[in-house]
Amino acid sequence: MSTISSIRPHAVMTARFRTTRARTLALVAPLTPEDMMVQSSPEASPVKWHLAHTTWFFESFVLREFLAGYKLFHPDFAWLFNSYYQSFAAFPEKRLRASFSRPPIDQILRYRQHVEEGIDRLLESEADPEALRRIELGVNHEEQHQELLLTDTLNAFFSNPLRPAYLPESGETTGEPDTLCFVPYEGGLRQAGHNGEGFCFDNELPRHRVWLEPYALATRLVTCREFAEFIADGGYRRPELWLSAGWDAVQQNGWQAPLYWSADSSHDRTLFTLRGERSLRAMEGAPVSHVSYFEADAYARWAGHRLPTEFEWEAAAEDQPVEGNLLESGNLVPIPQFPLPFLNAVQKKAVEDPSAAQDPKSTRCSLWGDCWQWNSSAYLGYPGFKALPGSLGEYNGKFMSGQMILRGGSCVTPAAHIRATYRNFFSPETRWQFSGIRLAQ
Amino acid sequence: MSTISSIRPHAVMTARFRTTRARTLALVAPLTPEDMMVQSSPEASPVKWHLAHTTWFFESFVLREFLAGYKLFHPDFAWLFNSYYQSFAAFPEKRLRASFSRPPIDQILRYRQHVEEGIDRLLESEADPEALRRIELGVNHEEQHQELLLTDTLNAFFSNPLRPAYLPESGETTGEPDTLCFVPYEGGLRQAGHNGEGFCFDNELPRHRVWLEPYALATRLVTCREFAEFIADGGYRRPELWLSAGWDAVQQNGWQAPLYWSADSSHDRTLFTLRGERSLRAMEGAPVSHVSYFEADAYARWAGHRLPTEFEWEAAAEDQPVEGNLLESGNLVPIPQFPLPFLNAVQKKAVEDPSAAQDPKSTRCSLWGDCWQWNSSAYLGYPGFKALPGSLGEYNGKFMSGQMILRGGSCVTPAAHIRATYRNFFSPETRWQFSGIRLAQ
Amino acid sequence: MSTISSIRPHAVMTARFRTTRARTLALVAPLTPEDMMVQSSPEASPVKWHLAHTTWFFESFVLREFLAGYKLFHPDFAWLFNSYYQSFAAFPEKRLRASFSRPPIDQILRYRQHVEEGIDRLLESEADPEALRRIELGVNHEEQHQELLLTDTLNAFFSNPLRPAYLPESGETTGEPDTLCFVPYEGGLRQAGHNGEGFCFDNELPRHRVWLEPYALATRLVTCREFAEFIADGGYRRPELWLSAGWDAVQQNGWQAPLYWSADSSHDRTLFTLRGERSLRAMEGAPVSHVSYFEADAYARWAGHRLPTEFEWEAAAEDQPVEGNLLESGNLVPIPQFPLPFLNAVQKKAVEDPSAAQDPKSTRCSLWGDCWQWNSSAYLGYPGFKALPGSLGEYNGKFMSGQMILRGGSCVTPAAHIRATYRNFFSPETRWQFSGIRLAQ
Amino acid sequence: MSTISSIRPHAVMTARFRTTRARTLALVAPLTPEDMMVQSSPEASPVKWHLAHTTWFFESFVLREFLAGYKLFHPDFAWLFNSYYQSFAAFPEKRLRASFSRPPIDQILRYRQHVEEGIDRLLESEADPEALRRIELGVNHEEQHQELLLTDTLNAFFSNPLRPAYLPESGETTGEPDTLCFVPYEGGLRQAGHNGEGFCFDNELPRHRVWLEPYALATRLVTCREFAEFIADGGYRRPELWLSAGWDAVQQNGWQAPLYWSADSSHDRTLFTLRGERSLRAMEGAPVSHVSYFEADAYARWAGHRLPTEFEWEAAAEDQPVEGNLLESGNLVPIPQFPLPFLNAVQKKAVEDPSAAQDPKSTRCSLWGDCWQWNSSAYLGYPGFKALPGSLGEYNGKFMSGQMILRGGSCVTPAAHIRATYRNFFSPETRWQFSGIRLAQ
Repeated sequence: MSTISSIRPHAVMTARFRTTRARTLALVAPLTPEDMMVQSSPEASPVKWHLAHTTWFFESFVLREFLAGYKLFHPDFAWLFNSYYQSFAAFPEKRLRASFSRPPIDQILRYRQHVEEGIDRLLESEADPEALRRIELGVNHEEQHQELLLTDTLNAFFSNPLRPAYLPESGETTGEPDTLCFVPYEGGLRQAGHNGEGFCFDNELPRHRVWLEPYALATRLVTCREFAEFIADGGYRRPELWLSAGWDAVQQNGWQAPLYWSADSSHDRTLFTLRGERSLRAMEGAPVSHVSYFEADAYARWAGHRLPTEFEWEAAAEDQPVEGNLLESGNLVPIPQFPLPFLNAVQKKAVEDPSAAQDPKSTRCSLWGDCWQWNSSAYLGYPGFKALPGSLGEYNGKFMSGQMILRGGSCVTPAAHIRATYRNFFSPETRWQFSGIRLAQ
Repeated sequence: MSTISSIRPHAVMTARFRTTRARTLALVAPLTPEDMMVQSSPEASPVKWHLAHTTWFFESFVLREFLAGYKLFHPDFAWLFNSYYQSFAAFPEKRLRASFSRPPIDQILRYRQHVEEGIDRLLESEADPEALRRIELGVNHEEQHQELLLTDTLNAFFSNPLRPAYLPESGETTGEPDTLCFVPYEGGLRQAGHNGEGFCFDNELPRHRVWLEPYALATRLVTCREFAEFIADGGYRRPELWLSAGWDAVQQNGWQAPLYWSADSSHDRTLFTLRGERSLRAMEGAPVSHVSYFEADAYARWAGHRLPTEFEWEAAAEDQPVEGNLLESGNLVPIPQFPLPFLNAVQKKAVEDPSAAQDPKSTRCSLWGDCWQWNSSAYLGYPGFKALPGSLGEYNGKFMSGQMILRGGSCVTPAAHIRATYRNFFSPETRWQFSGIRLAQ
Repeated sequence: MSTISSIRPHAVMTARFRTTRARTLALVAPLTPEDMMVQSSPEASPVKWHLAHTTWFFESFVLREFLAGYKLFHPDFAWLFNSYYQSFAAFPEKRLRASFSRPPIDQILRYRQHVEEGIDRLLESEADPEALRRIELGVNHEEQHQELLLTDTLNAFFSNPLRPAYLPESGETTGEPDTLCFVPYEGGLRQAGHNGEGFCFDNELPRHRVWLEPYALATRLVTCREFAEFIADGGYRRPELWLSAGWDAVQQNGWQAPLYWSADSSHDRTLFTLRGERSLRAMEGAPVSHVSYFEADAYARWAGHRLPTEFEWEAAAEDQPVEGNLLESGNLVPIPQFPLPFLNAVQKKAVEDPSAAQDPKSTRCSLWGDCWQWNSSAYLGYPGFKALPGSLGEYNGKFMSGQMILRGGSCVTPAAHIRATYRNFFSPETRWQFSGIRLAQ
Repeated sequence: MSTISSIRPHAVMTARFRTTRARTLALVAPLTPEDMMVQSSPEASPVKWHLAHTTWFFESFVLREFLAGYKLFHPDFAWLFNSYYQSFAAFPEKRLRASFSRPPIDQILRYRQHVEEGIDRLLESEADPEALRRIELGVNHEEQHQELLLTDTLNAFFSNPLRPAYLPESGETTGEPDTLCFVPYEGGLRQAGHNGEGFCFDNELPRHRVWLEPYALATRLVTCREFAEFIADGGYRRPELWLSAGWDAVQQNGWQAPLYWSADSSHDRTLFTLRGERSLRAMEGAPVSHVSYFEADAYARWAGHRLPTEFEWEAAAEDQPVEGNLLESGNLVPIPQFPLPFLNAVQKKAVEDPSAAQDPKSTRCSLWGDCWQWNSSAYLGYPGFKALPGSLGEYNGKFMSGQMILRGGSCVTPAAHIRATYRNFFSPETRWQFSGIRLAQ
């Protein structure tokens, strides 16, 4: 969470709040009220619920406490759209969200407007710094749900046997990326975690020292073609490539390919995307997505490499601009990565001849976008970690068990939302996220 | 299934078809497209699916075969809206029906119209007698789904924590029914099953002889007040009252009252109905509904009685008009039953003084409506049972395992749909149906 | 349960008690204390438990009530070895029986002796007629557990990857039975249920009238060879042959053959028996065993026939002596059936030419032994059924839900234990019993 | 795994091998063959299986490869007693181990002798250094199973409703330990992992640098009395104290106390131990055992502290002798800990007045024995981790997912088996281990 020095002026916050709220509506524009009802897996939520819950967050943690005279839009919404804040209010079982045909979408949209007017009023006044911090948290929270609503829509449309597309097919180049190379990084005693300038979540704090041995990261993500070779080589049938729990998951779930790949293993194989069904051939050069940690780990073992730790990844990303195939680029589908243009002459040399002398600081590869990258680090609190006080302390801290770290954002992540210290986390079996593979060695 | 002698003239069939189709639309009028998306339990389906599937039935089993030049509305619908006819086409897993946001409801309504025009054209021509039989089957099939869509809507609205009402509260009398009495019936060698006049399902055939010992049936269904006494007497905590499988169900599901009763056991207990939440007090005189076979059986044992067999029930109902609180009465909620007005002087005497001499033929109680009545008969084929030929043979026959018979229709059953030989059937754990208790001895 | 007229003199009862108890010990002679610990499926119990529970039955229902001064062998045994009599005492969860390493087998054998001495003392005295009835019930109860302990041992040894044999291979003839024929039976108004002479269980009462249409029964059970043809014809892959619940069972359990058949579908297929692994070829002429009701029903549909009702079976068996491959024959494995020797000239003619005039009373086929025969009747109470009073009322009545009837006994059933009115019952998915297929039409 | 420099002379190895094998037999002396059959939870194995599997390890990884002319004791044992080495041979499902009544215990004992003679022969010869390394690994493997067989026996006897005791009650002092204090440790850049002298497992390597912030560890484990206060304060009913996955585990499993505590929450509460049922009162001063990671974590949060990381623990233990209530002390039950006697004057001062100046190197608390201590570190590979080559690579590496680290050994761990770098690991839900709570801050 941001420290006091990070509070932006009201005008900036107002703009950021409005832009974010407007983008959420823009993202659901292709969807019908019926589409917004679907909850196609236990991990997912209906889009309508996302629209309401992000609004509930501002109402519950900002307006109720900080806007004098604020009148709740509807008393039931205070618990109906609570996700998991046990200390705030009771909440319905997650699976029941699929039954929320009432309130209708029109009422949810009025709810959004009502709360937005409240935030506007608050921002026009001399708002409490804590209120501003909470609004900023709410904006970041809504950005997370922007990503989630797209992720959930992909799953919902995949569950529909008709396989509708969220957006029409686009004509972007597919191409074939360069050979995968590794860029070396020096280790040493490094700082990890957020430095306090600008917004961050509580789980990025405190900044602390970590010791890193020298390492190297792949210049780009593993592609669909490369992953298809793993499959063809019996990747899903060879227990020696898998963690024990991963092998159990393969057996129990019958995994034979990433999620959204057709069962057909022939050359006519297809992948389902937010732009509809695509042939694997057309996607060969794009990063493989929707793999679990177990699949990422097995692939790395098969390839003779490993996954990076979160600190290796963070140290490499620290001074790299957040650029890549993120939400703003409008693809909404992973596309082939061409890392070399990002490199200068020294870097190119390092990549082409790793043994050559090099200036490690200037050597880097593109680390952002397309797919979240599974790290070999478990999601745990940093030394001295303290959750936010009150109900907001449930935001992140209570999930520090049984999950693995992912870094780097995906093609459905807002660029403004992430940073080098940003920690995403999911259970190692998770596949419905845009999650892919960055190799390390 | 009807024999050839039962074919109604085209005009009659046309009227019956149109009336039925129109009523389906009338029943969904209070619902929004979002409401029609909800699938709140594995047993239930979204209302939108019911609208499409009933239409699919006419298209698949009538128009494709019997209307020359008929053009399918949409090629995917042929498998998308198949329920369980394995020999007809593949079909999606039932749970996926909740993901059918596309096709949108407007398209489903156009599908309905397209198919209705086809049936109209067919009925204007010299239709094959088999086509007429199939249309009649389709009408009966749609009536079953009228009941189901109301049953599923009740469940969907109960799953919504806001508990919306399908219809507004009505002001009907509640009242207290008469003391429960038993009307005696002679046994002997009786005929059971349909006699071939008019429509019937294949599972009502063939008509055959059964031997009945003398028996007696209660004049009315068990009321909510009576069932509340069973609860207060520890009914759900005394294993000796239950079948072994029933006691397991009580333990595993944590049953403490019928479905839709509030957990609160105080005098403020409520029941959820299609007309919203009602106090138990207001419903005390109405038949208890939404009990499983196991609860009906346990109640009967507690009360010192038993449930009737399907043949006892059928023999008693044979010459009784189908009248009662059925769909047409518009209540959509069980109401107190006053059986005596149905009885003549002789019958009244029999009820008031069971030991008095009586003419068994003229003694009867009201057997129809409010709630389906669990029978102590397993759902099995009659001697010489033959399923319909072809895919329609899957309609009833393949479910003859693990289910119990229910008779008599409920407040959401169309009166024209049922008859004395009509066999409904559900698994003994089922509670989402309007199912209640008729005692026998 | 027997009526008072059926009480045998004390001497007879003493002999029957001692013989039965001795046979139980003889049956476990090939087993080690370790063998007697295995509980290889939720349906099965360890043999040691069977030894103790049958003893508990006599102690709990006879000695405690009827033997003055009887001293319990061990106070804990009263609840430890209770199976499911809720009204008698608490009892451990069934799955815990596998943890009863203590009491050791030696103590169980002393428990048996202690109780046997008690029963002996009671039988030497002027015992209450009810005590005698209970002893007789206890003897019949123990006979049921003799069958169960063999059934459970087969399962236990099959679960052991080493596949030990209970008894050594024997050299009996295998042979090929005659072509399967059908013997016709007249229908009409018949009596079903026990007539009160000699012992019976409460579920065989009361004797009552049933109406039967004319029918025919196969002269022998379906053989392994015939069942292998069903498999070869895609029997397990064709949903149209199966009840819906049966097809679900096939899918969920991955059934591809009867239980204890090897997965290998080639000509080297083997069957596991109490005499170890045998080749299918050697067993081809023997009745197929260890099939569920669903498999029996699917086979019958495939063969163009059906399964008999329990009343059809009972009427046919009524005047037939209980002879066949039962426990006493010592095979403990189904063997080829040769029904014709049981028929006289008239019967043979009927079988060879079913259209010929015949005396139905004298026409019969061998109905006993080898495998229990699945009937198409659900296990329900007869009209006027009353469970025994007290805790013994839980013996049979509470299981009258979700189970199907089996008739005829098997190669592990004591001949003295069964009769024409005897009703065995199991869930339709059950396969660990010696259960086979008698066709009807 | 040990490096070559760690190979002990043959004589030492022979002694260690024989001692270890003899102790295994001594540990099972109180058990009957029937006791050795019980498998009371999916995590546990029958004792007989432990006896065979530890022997299989020597046969499979030592004798087959390194003893010329070695003859397998039984060809089936090669796969029958394989636990999970997929690349070595097929193996039976774990749950089937409960069905291994054959081979009988006598044969298993002969198997042990046969293999011991083989190892003796090998040790008398000029054995390959790799053979010696494998024998040493096998000895350590057997020590792990010594602990497991006691852990499993406790569970087996707890599952037996009679609750037999493994050993008779002993009369040890109960007493009340000192107030819990914290001993401070300096952080800094430390080495973690094994230094290569003597035996270690592959997961303790490579030794590598880690950065530690200053920290403090509690002088003793949390006691039963302290944990009872947590319970009395609503510990199991307050979601804010728990990780989200931990709260789910509480709800799903109905946890209300540590495993083996009686449900009764009154002052008569009992604990089940290897020495039978004991009153909680008698155990109040002893460390609480059989808690999951989730319970340890929730307790720490409730107490205002936290759990240590594995590197904090290891740095503190590095120069501390392995002394405490371990297997050799013969208690087999946690006993009250009195840490102060281990401290010298400087340490005592530090404990009594943490603000006082102190020499961190000399400040320490007793870290060994009684219960394994849950660490807040996930079980992952160290930087540069390499599993052993071949099938033995499956020993540790494939379990590096979803598990938490435990350190310190327990009252059933052989003292010679553990060291400061030793990493135990279990799923965070695990409770059947002797696992307790060391607080940190």
